[in-house]
Amino acid sequence: MLKVQTIALAASLVSMSAVASDALMQKAKQAGLKPIPQEVSKLFKLIDNPKNPITKQKVELGKKLYFDPRLSKSGLISCNTCHNLAIGGDDNVPVATGHKWAHNPHHLNSPTVYNAVFNSRQFWDGRSPDLEDQATGPIQAPVEMAMDKEKAVEVVKSIPEYKEAFAKAYPGEEITIKTIGKAIGAFERTLVTPSRYDAYLNGDSTALSKAEKEGLKTFIEVGCASCHNGVGLGGTMAPFPAIGKYKYANIGDFKGNKNGMVKVPTLRNILETAPYFHNGATYDIKEAIAIMGETQLGKKLSKKQIESIATFFKALTGKKPYIRYPMLPTETAATPKPNLN
Amino acid sequence: MLKVQTIALAASLVSMSAVASDALMQKAKQAGLKPIPQEVSKLFKLIDNPKNPITKQKVELGKKLYFDPRLSKSGLISCNTCHNLAIGGDDNVPVATGHKWAHNPHHLNSPTVYNAVFNSRQFWDGRSPDLEDQATGPIQAPVEMAMDKEKAVEVVKSIPEYKEAFAKAYPGEEITIKTIGKAIGAFERTLVTPSRYDAYLNGDSTALSKAEKEGLKTFIEVGCASCHNGVGLGGTMAPFPAIGKYKYANIGDFKGNKNGMVKVPTLRNILETAPYFHNGATYDIKEAIAIMGETQLGKKLSKKQIESIATFFKALTGKKPYIRYPMLPTETAATPKPNLN
Repeated sequence: MLKVQTIALAASLVSMSAVASDALMQKAKQAGLKPIPQEVSKLFKLIDNPKNPITKQKVELGKKLYFDPRLSKSGLISCNTCHNLAIGGDDNVPVATGHKWAHNPHHLNSPTVYNAVFNSRQFWDGRSPDLEDQATGPIQAPVEMAMDKEKAVEVVKSIPEYKEAFAKAYPGEEITIKTIGKAIGAFERTLVTPSRYDAYLNGDSTALSKAEKEGLKTFIEVGCASCHNGVGLGGTMAPFPAIGKYKYANIGDFKGNKNGMVKVPTLRNILETAPYFHNGATYDIKEAIAIMGETQLGKKLSKKQIESIATFFKALTGKKPYIRYPMLPTETAATPKPNLN
Repeated sequence: MLKVQTIALAASLVSMSAVASDALMQKAKQAGLKPIPQEVSKLFKLIDNPKNPITKQKVELGKKLYFDPRLSKSGLISCNTCHNLAIGGDDNVPVATGHKWAHNPHHLNSPTVYNAVFNSRQFWDGRSPDLEDQATGPIQAPVEMAMDKEKAVEVVKSIPEYKEAFAKAYPGEEITIKTIGKAIGAFERTLVTPSRYDAYLNGDSTALSKAEKEGLKTFIEVGCASCHNGVGLGGTMAPFPAIGKYKYANIGDFKGNKNGMVKVPTLRNILETAPYFHNGATYDIKEAIAIMGETQLGKKLSKKQIESIATFFKALTGKKPYIRYPMLPTETAATPKPNLN
């Protein structure tokens, strides 16, 4: 009995030590870094959209639409083509490539959909307020899925299982491109990937290695967290004076929004989402860190600092959600035919 | 107690009646139609390849490779792009479309991968003996995934998790394009979709509706089963005198193999795999049945016969396997970069 009590006490001490806040945790919080909450109710509140509250019906429907290539003009491209959930939620290529192999005219890189729910705005120029709105863009963009919005709606309405699913997910609402975007957005809101970094910020001081903690410290001290902060380690709009310089001089003509602001990409799963920058200018994370230091912070980072930050990034690779590949309902005679041209 | 016995007896009679063979079942067997076996050991024997025996390790690895776009030159196209497991195992478009939006030069349609294991030969001209061999073709075809075979191997070898998975699945074997094909083939062998039609041929006389049974009878009597037979309801090589006539005159220049033989497409899941024929000439299953009757059987089928056969086809829509969408291992600095050009 005594032995059992001793073990229980020891376990409780270990547990207490593991959740005690250390100085680096405090420093991280002061720098504006925030974890994905461990408590489901808090997480749910964070990812939910009061204008489109998450329900199981919406998420299941949205998942189907996310994977459905029939929402594209050609019938070959789905949301998942450029934001492939198997490879970090993006496409690994420098420039978004869509209908008839068109490239994004500004040479923009497809950002990851994982944790995009934490972005304050969507798209590189922040022109969209949320995932629901964003999802309607690439479906219609001539260089992406190239679909007429009326035709996208027609596809969905021509498939009885989709009509039923919409009636259950959005009772009383008409099926429009907006409702399609809402369902896709609801699914995308669930695509969060908690990592060891979150466990650490949530109080488990053993979740990061010594070298990763060192890296986090460097990351904060050199100033990375001035843009890469919040739950998303990015996702807000920030000035980008580096545009037109260095690697940006040669690839693409993107200038940000009308105020020159550019969306700060999330650093979550950053080691899975090369190539980097809005124009996919480099596949090398160390080069990316060096360039960011130079262009955005005006600092020439040392090799040691760069390696330390890159080591910290390992802790940002998160646990991906379990996704059952959807078996999509079959089209009918009324479904508009794909058009490869 | 008596009541219990009576119920048990009644249940046993129902069950006996349900498994009793009826005249149509006999007729179907005589016509060469065979079900997917219900017994797992029989099914396993049927789908296995003694030269590449199915193991869990091979199937899991093969699934990852099947979904991996990094096996293509562009990094955007996977096996699943044209043989999409979400939409019947094909792509819904008339002509296979690959690297840089190239179309198949003979205007060939992507056949479904579901139940392809039951094909006696692979590809429309039957030039490949099995799935393991077939899988290496589209990876390298310039109009499909357009990948150098050396580069495909380099991609796999540059990713430690893949190297480990190959070492476990194929211990002692070198990673080559052939080993890649073997793993993909092992996965594809598991993609079988038992349907109500199989339940019926396996002895459950209640599995088909009256109209579907009527359709099966018509299907046999008009002669469809002379080509569409075996477990695959197709999958063998057959003469195709219709080539160059009717809808075939205008789309594509495919002439079959050197003996004019063409692979008979499976009819399993046929209502999910429009458009039809080797050249995707029609999306209308009734038109397809009419044309086949006219060109291959020399018969003008009545509207009633056509509708009856189409009704039978509903019973061929099978249960799809449960597929967890794979999270693929991350590329390394050594991984060849995608090339969109």
